Amino acid sequence: MISSVTVSVPGTTANLGPGFDCIGAALTVYNQFQFTLVPEAASDLTITVTGTEASRVTTDETNLAYQSFARFYHHLGKTVPKIAIHVQLGVPLARGLGSSATAIVGGLVGANELAGNPLSSSEVMELAIAMEGHPDNVVPALLGNCQLSVGEAGNWQICPIPWHLDVIPVVAIPNFELSTQEARSVLPTQFSRADAIFNIARLGLLTRGLETGNPDWLTMALEDKIHQPYREKLITGYQEVKKAARDAGAHGMVISGAGPTLLALTDPNHGEAVVTAMANAWMQKGIEAEVRSLSLDNQGATILY
Amino acid sequence: MISSVTVSVPGTTANLGPGFDCIGAALTVYNQFQFTLVPEAASDLTITVTGTEASRVTTDETNLAYQSFARFYHHLGKTVPKIAIHVQLGVPLARGLGSSATAIVGGLVGANELAGNPLSSSEVMELAIAMEGHPDNVVPALLGNCQLSVGEAGNWQICPIPWHLDVIPVVAIPNFELSTQEARSVLPTQFSRADAIFNIARLGLLTRGLETGNPDWLTMALEDKIHQPYREKLITGYQEVKKAARDAGAHGMVISGAGPTLLALTDPNHGEAVVTAMANAWMQKGIEAEVRSLSLDNQGATILY
Repeated sequence: MISSVTVSVPGTTANLGPGFDCIGAALTVYNQFQFTLVPEAASDLTITVTGTEASRVTTDETNLAYQSFARFYHHLGKTVPKIAIHVQLGVPLARGLGSSATAIVGGLVGANELAGNPLSSSEVMELAIAMEGHPDNVVPALLGNCQLSVGEAGNWQICPIPWHLDVIPVVAIPNFELSTQEARSVLPTQFSRADAIFNIARLGLLTRGLETGNPDWLTMALEDKIHQPYREKLITGYQEVKKAARDAGAHGMVISGAGPTLLALTDPNHGEAVVTAMANAWMQKGIEAEVRSLSLDNQGATILY
Repeated sequence: MISSVTVSVPGTTANLGPGFDCIGAALTVYNQFQFTLVPEAASDLTITVTGTEASRVTTDETNLAYQSFARFYHHLGKTVPKIAIHVQLGVPLARGLGSSATAIVGGLVGANELAGNPLSSSEVMELAIAMEGHPDNVVPALLGNCQLSVGEAGNWQICPIPWHLDVIPVVAIPNFELSTQEARSVLPTQFSRADAIFNIARLGLLTRGLETGNPDWLTMALEDKIHQPYREKLITGYQEVKKAARDAGAHGMVISGAGPTLLALTDPNHGEAVVTAMANAWMQKGIEAEVRSLSLDNQGATILY
């Protein structure tokens, strides 16, 4: 039986344009979670964290990777073993890039591996969705690629959405945070029929736009009337950064997850210009942002020994 | 210059499951419209009609194929020529299979052809959408195949949705009518966020389900919370026919257009059983229905000489 395992989990961008709460994509940024069984240790739990903003991660039982690790054992009706966790952060915290989902997936996958994989990957997925409350980050964090998740607890259909190699994700991560709770609170509970149909049609177009890379389809497909019109006011510079991205050749720009990170989709010829334009536009509003051209992660959660 | 043209236009099924007002597919049932210039005729307009329910089609200036024919000339600022129209009906009237769209498309395409094609096909499409008021029947009637139409007047993106050969449409056409106006009047104007997301996610799943033929995806993807829960009460036997279709092996069943025709999607192994099951289920409710296994039309409006 192994006594230590390291899980690499990609960050994710969810709520992709019209696809609120259902579509998300794994990106090439990673958190690593090492779990080491320490049966002889004095304390039940030791957590160490390195990487950007490491000091902000809790290192007691409230740590999300630990909560998820423990959830696995509770689910099986077993006692949580004494554990040492080391977290290496590569995904910015609380910015709309699925850092919570990496912790949930990392904890569950790590625990399952240490226990000899008693749970199937779909059981792990169900647990992860239940912990996160929605599927759109944890499913691509687990499986990689762009994933559409449809259904409800116990009955999910997970549908990979083909993603053309020429569709380049650019993320602009500002130096401020936006709580998911605040971002949720500004959303209406009712929508007009026209707004619902607006998004329904665009999600269909998005699946075809991502598969083909068709720029006209992608531009229209990234429009949304369910969440972004309400949330963009919470993000200083949203309109300016969007205009700059579009002017530099991006197909469109959306809020990544609940924000404040902004995600542009562009093609290989415009990636560099879009990165520069988004950074400059935010700079002019007095906001420092880390802007990076990424790729789609196609591995999902991976065990490293 | 030609003086006579015949246009064949396929019937269509719109509002496909979650895709209210945006997705439609052309089926292998056709209306034919023959337009013959008769400059020496005594009257400006003669219309003859053959085929099922021919006597119910108006033969004066209110005839929709004529209205559409005339609209073409008005659009160009020209006088409508004296014309003889012959209509050969193969698409059932007012049943939710796009008979109006065939007339609109037939009139515009016929007039354009007689005039030497001064309008591009996208201009013809814009006129057809404007006449019908929504794109989901006229676009596949014009282009064939399954088409997702997204946008607004002057700015449509038309996106063909690949349709796996193993996805077989079965239409069950009952011997009663349902007015589109009545079917519209029962729809709510506001929807909850959950219901909107329900349909958004399923339209993405539908595009992938149609492309791959994946039965589990298709079954979930044909669910809807925007129109069918409100309209099914207008269609006697809806639940019974749906259960019969599912029990016989259909992936799912939806209302075709505004109804009352019901559309099941199934695979080649279950087509015959689904046809029988749907017909019998309606028969037991005292309703006679013509149930047919069709194919996707892949030509759209076609000029026959």
